[in-house]
Amino acid sequence: MLDGLIISIDAMGGDDAPDVVIKGLEYFLKTTGKQRKARFLLHGDQAAINTLLAKAPLTKARSEIRHSDSSIEMDAKPSQALRRGKGSSMWNAIQSVKSGEAEIVVSAGNTGALMAMSMMILKRKQGVQRPALAASWPNEGGTSVVLDVGANVDADAGQLTEFAVLGEAFYRALYKTDRPRVSLLNVGTEDQKGNAVIKAAHERLSESQLGLNYIGYVEGSDISLGGAEVIVTDGFTGNIALKTAEGTAKLVGRYMKDALQGSWWSKFTAFLNMRALLALKKRIDPSGFNGAVFLGLNGVVIKSHGGTDAKGYANAVNIAIGLAESDFLQTIDVTLEALHDEDDNIGFIK
Amino acid sequence: MLDGLIISIDAMGGDDAPDVVIKGLEYFLKTTGKQRKARFLLHGDQAAINTLLAKAPLTKARSEIRHSDSSIEMDAKPSQALRRGKGSSMWNAIQSVKSGEAEIVVSAGNTGALMAMSMMILKRKQGVQRPALAASWPNEGGTSVVLDVGANVDADAGQLTEFAVLGEAFYRALYKTDRPRVSLLNVGTEDQKGNAVIKAAHERLSESQLGLNYIGYVEGSDISLGGAEVIVTDGFTGNIALKTAEGTAKLVGRYMKDALQGSWWSKFTAFLNMRALLALKKRIDPSGFNGAVFLGLNGVVIKSHGGTDAKGYANAVNIAIGLAESDFLQTIDVTLEALHDEDDNIGFIK
Repeated sequence: MLDGLIISIDAMGGDDAPDVVIKGLEYFLKTTGKQRKARFLLHGDQAAINTLLAKAPLTKARSEIRHSDSSIEMDAKPSQALRRGKGSSMWNAIQSVKSGEAEIVVSAGNTGALMAMSMMILKRKQGVQRPALAASWPNEGGTSVVLDVGANVDADAGQLTEFAVLGEAFYRALYKTDRPRVSLLNVGTEDQKGNAVIKAAHERLSESQLGLNYIGYVEGSDISLGGAEVIVTDGFTGNIALKTAEGTAKLVGRYMKDALQGSWWSKFTAFLNMRALLALKKRIDPSGFNGAVFLGLNGVVIKSHGGTDAKGYANAVNIAIGLAESDFLQTIDVTLEALHDEDDNIGFIK
Repeated sequence: MLDGLIISIDAMGGDDAPDVVIKGLEYFLKTTGKQRKARFLLHGDQAAINTLLAKAPLTKARSEIRHSDSSIEMDAKPSQALRRGKGSSMWNAIQSVKSGEAEIVVSAGNTGALMAMSMMILKRKQGVQRPALAASWPNEGGTSVVLDVGANVDADAGQLTEFAVLGEAFYRALYKTDRPRVSLLNVGTEDQKGNAVIKAAHERLSESQLGLNYIGYVEGSDISLGGAEVIVTDGFTGNIALKTAEGTAKLVGRYMKDALQGSWWSKFTAFLNMRALLALKKRIDPSGFNGAVFLGLNGVVIKSHGGTDAKGYANAVNIAIGLAESDFLQTIDVTLEALHDEDDNIGFIK
């Protein structure tokens, strides 16, 4: 049996699973995870995983395989996945959290399926209308968390308020910041800007005595420029904003590569400055921010990008462990209860 | 009297107006505008403009000043601007298009005020429910146009369909492309993704026989990576996507600057590669894409960034002239009529 902090892994989820998953765990244990006490439950095809573990000794020493006969296709619809997914590596990985065997689950599998199964197995936390997907993004001074980035395609004012509370507790737990600035993503920072839903959420958050460090509206540019630590929006806008940021970072990165490899002379001068350029590459490497988190369930589910590499997967595992070691799930219960008590007191209509 | 193509300029609009405006016109006439026959009606403070024209001989030779006593504050609310704005440089600049004296108007002033005044003075085109603001953005292969980026805070399926028609005609007119790919911005590319409004618009555009090159849904990353030429969305999402892209490009640019100036050695190697780095800087310079366009009015209104520099202002003027020389306003009438005939035929409920 395993002891210590236990992470449940959907070893078959992801474009290059289980290969990237096992390589990711090994990378984690070699680097940031060297001192961590974490152990892993690997859900998936026993034979395939065993073959890979032969080349991943650190992971092998800290893992236990739980065989599953099937896995969820990356393009399966959530409804299909729910109907046919019982017994799959994803299902079993979530089930390990439900049963209390593991603290947290990581999957690079199909997002819709993971969300639907997590909802079905773990259930929403008391007082949460809908869970949200929270993603980390680099900004000038550190890290922004944007939520919801796609668990729902819309949100009303009450849900946005809940996202603010969930996101704030998440930020404190993961990034050890006392008073992260909480904001609503809008088309401008003036009070009269935005639609009815966002104005109602703004009013609710402005009036709240919950002690959130709510700073009001921020704009799209603040995601990368660091206008707030916690940026709250509906899942439609959040998903588009995050993917827009990813696409733009990729475009500028390609421009840069073109410029530095455009001629023999450019290649030569770039070579001379290799050290600074590698540091730059690391700073804009999306794998350093891989690992979105479903918030609002009885248990924490980490969603890795399906196409991530070993380093990216390791980052998702690092986020999982950071959260599992924090008191996030306990504090959030207290904060949600306070939020809804306040809702009742002020007669907030959601 | 002026002859040839006439552009009406709100010389007092913008953070550093009228200084940047006159410098921008001069820059335009020195560079891309050298061969253009355009002339300018400069609306604003006669004395201030005259002083600046003394140092801008090309502009002086091609301009006529129209004095106005007032201008709209950059932070005025649209309602205030409408109440008190009559006779301001912005009002008069738009009025010149209404009266037929000028083909097109450019302002770097307050966006909300410009939109409200343009609506009031120029009125919506027959068959347009709401105008949209269209912005150009660099992508891997060329240019994406995103609309609406903030004229409205929401849009129904009928409006999204109109935006598609307006954006397509705009793209053809400005970028001389025969069949630009038209798309709807969504949280995924599969048919079942998105909310009810976007699905209805998708169905409507898929069924259309208008000859649009409609390719379906694209994601946020496609804005920078070139998944489509025309990207249609509501003004809330579009504004946030565009500002997110701007913020991200700025962040990566600053990272790059840090890397290249981090040490004496880095500075030295960057100096050796100056030519490629300057070309790169030009490629990611936002002023090269300055100039959003209000579509759907009887007349075309160009909105420059309030904080742009002379080069950015010149780009907005270049867009203005490109559009004024095209048959955009004529073809769009035909296309809009065809759209609404089709709406009636298929019984599309907006």
